[in-house]
Amino acid sequence: MTKHDPPYYAVIFTTTLSDQQEGYVEMAKKMEELAQEQPGFLGMDSARAEIGITISYWASLDAIDLWRKNAEHSKAKALGKSKWYASYNLKICKVLDSFN
Amino acid sequence: MTKHDPPYYAVIFTTTLSDQQEGYVEMAKKMEELAQEQPGFLGMDSARAEIGITISYWASLDAIDLWRKNAEHSKAKALGKSKWYASYNLKICKVLDSFN
Repeated sequence: MTKHDPPYYAVIFTTTLSDQQEGYVEMAKKMEELAQEQPGFLGMDSARAEIGITISYWASLDAIDLWRKNAEHSKAKALGKSKWYASYNLKICKVLDSFN
Repeated sequence: MTKHDPPYYAVIFTTTLSDQQEGYVEMAKKMEELAQEQPGFLGMDSARAEIGITISYWASLDAIDLWRKNAEHSKAKALGKSKWYASYNLKICKVLDSFN
């Protein structure tokens, strides 16, 4: 993501996939685009190997809360939990320091 | 990683690789093993696609500081910066909340 000065916030989302992946890639792309339109969205890092890790960065906890309550996002989450993910974990973090 | 109750700490390390990868995989594995022996180490999540993301979890900022000052780790970091990584970023975070 582009450079931001801490403090800001990070949501760490780690997942393992189930054997039902129909529609997953399309939805993941759609949610990434939708997140980018949200107030306070700062950026996203994503990689998948044995597990998937998606980290989204936010200006405030309020911005995270708004995104969590977004209607389309809620539908996608329900599908993820019931269909695409074998397991998942979400962590809400405060970024204290960042350096290259 | 195994279940821990927040607050605890996370180090988010994102990288892109250079075209010089000799010795990288071995060193990454060695550093993962060494981290596991450090006091306050709680776990690690790792995935690589276009970018690599490694998140290590720690009981305290002091534990992170000790790991950063570890001599073998310092040598590995110097090699990473000069040889293996085209770019990298490190973020120190406080995990406020975690849920499944």
